[in-house]
Amino acid sequence: MASTPASARNAPVAGAALAELSPDTTGMAYIPPARARALFRKGTVAPTAGWSAGFAQANLIAVPSDWAYDVLLFAQRNERACPVLDVTDPGLARTELAPGADLRTDLPAYRIWRDGSLVDEPGEVGRYWRPDLVAFLIGSSFTFEAALRTAGLPLRHVEEGRNVPMYVTTHPCRPAGRLRGPLVVTMRPIPSDLVATAVRVTAAMPDAHGAPVAVGNPEALGIADLGRPDFGDAVTIREDEVPVFWACGTTPQAAVMSSCPPFAITHAPGHMFVTDIPDTAYRYT
Amino acid sequence: MASTPASARNAPVAGAALAELSPDTTGMAYIPPARARALFRKGTVAPTAGWSAGFAQANLIAVPSDWAYDVLLFAQRNERACPVLDVTDPGLARTELAPGADLRTDLPAYRIWRDGSLVDEPGEVGRYWRPDLVAFLIGSSFTFEAALRTAGLPLRHVEEGRNVPMYVTTHPCRPAGRLRGPLVVTMRPIPSDLVATAVRVTAAMPDAHGAPVAVGNPEALGIADLGRPDFGDAVTIREDEVPVFWACGTTPQAAVMSSCPPFAITHAPGHMFVTDIPDTAYRYT
Repeated sequence: MASTPASARNAPVAGAALAELSPDTTGMAYIPPARARALFRKGTVAPTAGWSAGFAQANLIAVPSDWAYDVLLFAQRNERACPVLDVTDPGLARTELAPGADLRTDLPAYRIWRDGSLVDEPGEVGRYWRPDLVAFLIGSSFTFEAALRTAGLPLRHVEEGRNVPMYVTTHPCRPAGRLRGPLVVTMRPIPSDLVATAVRVTAAMPDAHGAPVAVGNPEALGIADLGRPDFGDAVTIREDEVPVFWACGTTPQAAVMSSCPPFAITHAPGHMFVTDIPDTAYRYT
Repeated sequence: MASTPASARNAPVAGAALAELSPDTTGMAYIPPARARALFRKGTVAPTAGWSAGFAQANLIAVPSDWAYDVLLFAQRNERACPVLDVTDPGLARTELAPGADLRTDLPAYRIWRDGSLVDEPGEVGRYWRPDLVAFLIGSSFTFEAALRTAGLPLRHVEEGRNVPMYVTTHPCRPAGRLRGPLVVTMRPIPSDLVATAVRVTAAMPDAHGAPVAVGNPEALGIADLGRPDFGDAVTIREDEVPVFWACGTTPQAAVMSSCPPFAITHAPGHMFVTDIPDTAYRYT
């Protein structure tokens, strides 16, 4: 023990020395963010997990400006689920997170909401955009996945070519103005001997949802069946693995469904905005 | 080198083994937050650095509700200076950060602003409170001072019984709505061999302003004379020490002075709200 170097004893890469890196099944791990966005603009539709590794990704929610304070306050009061990375001025579809990007076209898939109901899931939203829309870009757990992968952790949804599984929990968010709704979480199966590494890697990245909200015990979150996620796809959980749950940027969509603002545009769950910001900019240590 | 245990090589307590702990000159380091607030409510006026060590402190800014979105957006866009810990609903003077506290009476000193001008500096603000006020509680660098002290770092302003020195820089904040203004920073003199420790300790606490915005070179921030702070008091900088600058929660007050909202209530610089939240709740690793 005394002769084990500190780097192997404590560093997040502990697992990497023992395990193969989780495979790059998308083939998109090393394309620059601008190239990813160009593919989505041209019509490619895919979950963005595993794309442009090392760059931050973001959830999108755009609402009429008279709902903007409610959304921003909801995000502040529930920042584990809703870490705000940028907010646009009304009508603008540009963000400092990727100056060349257009928020109306550069995500792989969107959702259109009227009075809390999903009415369309288009590939671009130019025809839906309004001059009073304020867009919120909210941190994504996909941002910490490159660091998890480097640390030797499996990313089962990427391995299996699926969207990450997301579950609507029975845990209520703290309400804000007219917005209320339940916490949504993502789940990743983690081998029991790597759970601590997963906690440490993600805890340092609160703008990507930070540390898990729960490790094991899905019942405590009100999740009855891990095989039936509310968004995304089920993934295989192996014998030696524990389900680990992180707060999810789909939470604002659940609030839209519960609170029924007259109009909202969001990304489709798992289909994020790929930014130009390196994930290291969101790592606090 | 190889025989040095990891804990001494890398841990934030490195300095503590070599140096005396910075003295508790206030005599208030170990009183509970509720007791500190009771003293302030009864009329004690003092900077809160060194009070109730181990509990988070917060800056206060309250504005009429029609300015609340501007303040919240300004905070989001300048979160190094303005990490929001809580936002009240209009008119309420209570916060989840200290359920028993009254924001109108429990800080040691307040400032009243009309059209960007300071018009009063009372010990309580009951007569100024309005039903449309929204109060923002913003993280304070005093929150990380207990961790700095435990790590063996000097807290010169506490040692010398002064308020922390604060400087208005020439660095503009990112504007938000009607709010704009310069970044304000605090300065602590740090021995050169402990600067890295100061960075590591504070980087893990972004809700207390996180890592320094600059180490040395005050001219780059537009600070001409460290002996003449814009708020607080000058402190001694010793031969072997480097001035280290952190973003400061007085930044919203500078925005009030620049942007002239019709009315605002803030804390007096350095005279914070002492919360019931342990500082560990804001430590990300």
